[in-house]
This record gives sequence, structure tokens and C-alpha cells, in this order.
Amino acid sequence: MAIQQKLSLMIPGPTPVPEKVLQALSKHPIGHRSKEFQMLVESTTENLQWLHQTQNDVLTITGSGTAAMEAGIINTLSKGDKVICGENGKFGERWVKVAKEFGLEVIKINSEWGTPLNPEEFKKILEEDKQKKIKAVILTHSETSTGVINDLKTISSYIREHSTALSIVDCVTSLGACNVPVDEWQLDIVASGSQKGYMIPPGLSFITMSQKAWEATEKSNLPKFYLNLKAYRKSLLNNSNPYTPAVNLVFALDEALKMMREEGLENIFSRHNKHKIAMSNAIKALNLKLFADEKYLSPSITAINTEEMDAEEFRKTIKDKFDILLAGGQDHLKGKIFRVGHLGYVNDRDIITVVSAISNVLLDMGKITIQEAGEALKVTSDCLDKN
Amino acid sequence: MAIQQKLSLMIPGPTPVPEKVLQALSKHPIGHRSKEFQMLVESTTENLQWLHQTQNDVLTITGSGTAAMEAGIINTLSKGDKVICGENGKFGERWVKVAKEFGLEVIKINSEWGTPLNPEEFKKILEEDKQKKIKAVILTHSETSTGVINDLKTISSYIREHSTALSIVDCVTSLGACNVPVDEWQLDIVASGSQKGYMIPPGLSFITMSQKAWEATEKSNLPKFYLNLKAYRKSLLNNSNPYTPAVNLVFALDEALKMMREEGLENIFSRHNKHKIAMSNAIKALNLKLFADEKYLSPSITAINTEEMDAEEFRKTIKDKFDILLAGGQDHLKGKIFRVGHLGYVNDRDIITVVSAISNVLLDMGKITIQEAGEALKVTSDCLDKN
Repeated sequence: MAIQQKLSLMIPGPTPVPEKVLQALSKHPIGHRSKEFQMLVESTTENLQWLHQTQNDVLTITGSGTAAMEAGIINTLSKGDKVICGENGKFGERWVKVAKEFGLEVIKINSEWGTPLNPEEFKKILEEDKQKKIKAVILTHSETSTGVINDLKTISSYIREHSTALSIVDCVTSLGACNVPVDEWQLDIVASGSQKGYMIPPGLSFITMSQKAWEATEKSNLPKFYLNLKAYRKSLLNNSNPYTPAVNLVFALDEALKMMREEGLENIFSRHNKHKIAMSNAIKALNLKLFADEKYLSPSITAINTEEMDAEEFRKTIKDKFDILLAGGQDHLKGKIFRVGHLGYVNDRDIITVVSAISNVLLDMGKITIQEAGEALKVTSDCLDKN
Repeated sequence: MAIQQKLSLMIPGPTPVPEKVLQALSKHPIGHRSKEFQMLVESTTENLQWLHQTQNDVLTITGSGTAAMEAGIINTLSKGDKVICGENGKFGERWVKVAKEFGLEVIKINSEWGTPLNPEEFKKILEEDKQKKIKAVILTHSETSTGVINDLKTISSYIREHSTALSIVDCVTSLGACNVPVDEWQLDIVASGSQKGYMIPPGLSFITMSQKAWEATEKSNLPKFYLNLKAYRKSLLNNSNPYTPAVNLVFALDEALKMMREEGLENIFSRHNKHKIAMSNAIKALNLKLFADEKYLSPSITAINTEEMDAEEFRKTIKDKFDILLAGGQDHLKGKIFRVGHLGYVNDRDIITVVSAISNVLLDMGKITIQEAGEALKVTSDCLDKN
């Protein structure tokens, strides 16, 4: 039976928040123009650069990840500009909508939901663009809606060969979960959100801007005010913000980034990788089907195809019996898949717990045998031990 | 001597936050698509309507008050539209900038900083607009930068007589501090921010939309995505949000609105009015000069003209000695004024405390006599008792 307040969040955001971070969140606010707050902006910015593995500017916006992605687009492009949008899930779709809303000419590169984008399609279109009309390539690294990770490294290398187009990348569920070396991969614009790998509640988003991205802002003619990144850059020189920032979320950010530095990037990435492997193997052992292409599983989300079983009903049972919140399918996938988030402040116990809960409900439904439930548990534990 | 963590915020935002609200803020987040969160959206929306004294939609945006004001402008207007902007302080100036950024044709109605806008100037220009070319009147109710309150009631009545123009009003430091009856005054669009009268940390903003405002959205051609209010309205039908909202700030909002309902609107307004009167009388008793026209004092902020004394130095002394943060002057007023915020979770003790601190520093500087310090305290207490 569910006990309100003892919820376990296994969705791809909001993700669980450490007690230390919640305590930081609940401190009395301070003045956002004070020296004390400037010190916080300085330290969080430095740690954000560490997390992004970059020397580029990393700006903090009060708003969702969508606000950060929109900012990346409207600050560097102009009406009528030609862009490529990679679309293989709900977020890919969203960036197409944003691009069209701002009057950009969109070349779509599609892939069926659950499958990755094909880097060679990007290469082909970029190579054919002899006149360098394509101003940007907009894509999603980890597709939260399907649990697929796109091959950003390869796509970015093709963008670099093209030499003119900017990369504008939604790394909302990859940043802080797997390797996103902004400088090494030469990513121009990377957007992310606080309620994901950052382990803090929603409300802040982050955007990195390369030198090339800043140069593009000089030509951009799209109107913007709240999301005008030049104002953020100017304020950042003084460790400040153009508009009142979500002060308490910045307290939380500071604490969470310190915890991340303590754990170290390699450990964070291998923890997420281990959980991804354990989850996908458990799912197979339970006779369920992975929704995403197994060679391109997101480090943060495992999507499960429930086939003839109603996924929403299944999620509800897990919630009612065990207080574990799983995510449903979005749009046409509603009722057909459910998604397990294993992103941010997640440990091995959370993984065996969610596998046990899923096993239990499948047992009750007569979908698996006791033997199979036991095997799934063994597989999960083995993956957690090995990796 | 200052003790870190025992700061008293007497600035016009962030304002002090009650312990109960901080506790709500620090709860573990829940899913923003869950039934539990829908219930929160429903109750906060209902309480926001109560606070705004309106049946209009009240939408909650993750972003600063500037984001909400921008949303009001870009959702209802089109490029080339003629608008009136009232400008008598930094925020009035900001709305002129926003309007210009989005290609609106701006007719400015100015008044010197520290003095109120003249409603008759609005009347004259609106009456002369026989062809009804003016689409909106944009103005600030309580000018946070100067401590002046504009006569919104009268200006709104002139806008109504004109019959076509929308009112788009920044009520960031008036909402929750003095009477802003949205329906009675027939205000179309009212924007406000969480870190003010709401008594919660920054990160959320609010916007009311009248039927007429919604009708105007159908004609608006300015591009927008994150701040497209139609998406917020559509989600609100389902007690939801188009993008991940700042869940924990919504926990805090829910708690704070409940506290406000318990206190009651009349009590909230009379408390702010009492503090305004006490502060202004104390300032005069201390031989300091009010910066704002005494007949138009904001209920939330008292701005003090320090004349030959360096206002920044004065603020610093108050901070260092007594851990009380006062606000400085903005732009050309920096060093020339300081501002005392008395907005939100402020009680009589906070008022006598800040008066005592100011008196003490003036005594140390030899600016006032012991007799005068005593008189200021007496005047303050009398005002607090009487009102």
C-alpha cells in the first residue's frame, strides 16, 4: 500500500534529490545582487564548466530545458535560415516545432521512434550543401521519450567537416549521465535541465555557447528579451544575472555540483552505464521487450514495450502497490510503453527495487514464473556486480 | 557584527520566506504529470484567482516577472502595433525595451523618476486615437526602482473608455501588498513574481488573461514557444503544464497562498499600508528625505534620498553591523538613494528593527541627536499602533 511521502521517483525527471541538496534548497533566500550570491554564481559556473568538460560559457536560465533549447535557436539564427532537425522522438519533434515557429526552413532527418538517427544522412545532406546554406543542426542526444541515444559524436564530426553549421543539442537526459565532452566533440550549443542528472528539482536550465555560437548571435535577427543570451553573458562577467534568478535552486545547484565533483565524472558515467545494462538485461529476463534499439540504449531511461498489456494500468499497479513512479509513453505510445528513469541520484538498490516490483506485478498477473522472477533478480545483481 | 545565516532581507525581492514555506520547498519532488501534482495545480490556481480577485485565467510560468511581462506583450500584439508605455522608473524603461525589441511602435508617457505617471496624459492620447490604432497600454503599478505607486485604477478606467486597447500591467510589487482587484478594475493582463508579496523564493511568475486578452492572442503574429500562453491555457484545462514546472516552488506556492488566505486580503493590505506609513514617517523624523512623491508611496518599498551621503556606503554599514540587507539605487540613482523593502512576510518588529538600525548608524555618523533617534522610534511605534 502506498504511503504518501515515501515515493520513489523512477521517471526521467524530476529525479530523486539528495537530502543535502533539499536542505540547501530550503535555506532562507539571500539578495541576488549581493556579494554572497555572486560567489555562488562564480562557483556554480566553474563547476558547470567542469561538468560540461568545456571552456565555453555556461549560462544558467530560470526556466525549463525547453527554454534553454529555444534560447539556443533564437539567439543564433534568423528568419528563413535553413536548419537540419533530427527527429526520432517527442523532443526531436518539439525542436522542429520551435524552429518552424521562428520561421526557420527545416530539413527533417527522421528515424522511427525507438531507433537512432543515422549519422550518414546528416553527412549526405551536409556534403550536398555546397553553398553552405545550412546554418544549424538541431538534435537530441538522449531521446527521453524512447530511451534511445543518438550518435552525437559522429554527427558532430560531420557538422564540423561542413564547417559552417552550428550544432544545437538537447543533452537534457545525457548531461551528467554519460560522456558529453563539449570541447572535444566541438559542440556549439548544449542545453540541459536541472531536474535530470543534476539531481536538483526542476526550474533551472543550462546552455553552453561556443565562440562560433557567440559570433552567430551578432547576425541573428529573431526578437527575444527574457531569453536574450547576450544579456546573460554580460551579467555573468560580474557573476550576476540579468533578471532575478531562482536563488534557492542555485543553492541546491551549488550543493549538487559539489557532490558530483566528489563522485567524479568517470564514476558518474559508469554508474549510469551499469544501471542501463542491469535494467535492459532484467527486462529481457522478464520476457518483456525493450522499446529502443539495444545498441543505442540511453544511459538514463529504459523504455519497455508492453505489447498486449496496458502500460498505463501496469504503471498504476506499481505505483499503488509499491510507491514507485514510472513514466508512461507519450503521444501515440501512451498505453503501449512504460519508461524507467535511472538518472541522477540513483543507486544499485533503486535498480533491484524496481526490478523486484516489476517482477512481482508480472508474477501476480501470471505473466512469468517464480523461476523467471528469480532469474531476473540474479541477472540484475550480476550486472550490478560486474560493471 | 554580522553572522552569516541570520540575514534580514529588507529588499523588494527576494523577500523573507516563512519557515512553513521553506519546509514545503524542501520536500522530495513528485512527478509533474502525476495526479498529486494536478491537485496542487488546481488548488494553487484557485487561490491565485482569489488573490487576484478575478475569474480570469491565472497562469503560472517558471521564470522571472520579466518573463511574464514579455509573455503578456508577445502573446497579444503584432509587429508594428502601436502601444503606450508608461515610464517613470527602471521597470517602465524595461517594458519600453521589450516593446521595441518586438517591433512595436511605442508612444512613451514619461514622468520623472520618483513622481507618478499622470493619468490625464493617458486619457488625452487615448481620446485622440479616434481610429483605435493603439492596441495596448503597458505600465508598472508599483515602480520598484523608485517606490512610487501609479494610479492604475484611474488609468485603467481611461483605457476602458477607449474600448480597444488592452491593459498590460506589471503588478510585481503591488500584487499581494495592496488592492489590485483585477475584475473590478477590468485589467486585461497582470504580471507578478513569486519572490515578492507571495513570500516564496524567486523562480515562478504569474499572469492573468482576460477574455479580451485571449481574443487578442488570435491575431498576434509575434513568434513564441516557451512563453506561448495558449499552451499554458490548454494544459491548465487538465491542471497541468506544457513544460516541466518548478515543482518544489509550486509546493511553496501552495503553502504560501494558504497562509495568505488565512490572513485575508484586507489584513494583508492594511499591514502593508501600516508599514508604509510607519516607514515614511520614521524617515522624515530622521531628517532624511523620501525619494518618491509622498502622495504616491508604494506599499512595498520606501526609497530614501541620501543627498550628500553615499547611499552604498550607508547600506554597507547597515549590512555589516546588523545583517540587514537594504536595496541600493539602480542606474543613475546608484549611490544616491537606498530602498527599504517592506513586502511580503514582514511584521511590525521588522519595521522597528530597520528604523532602529538606520537611527543607530545616523547617530554614529553624527547626523542626528539622541533626542531625534528617540522621536523616530516613537513616531514609528505610534504609526504601527494606530493603523
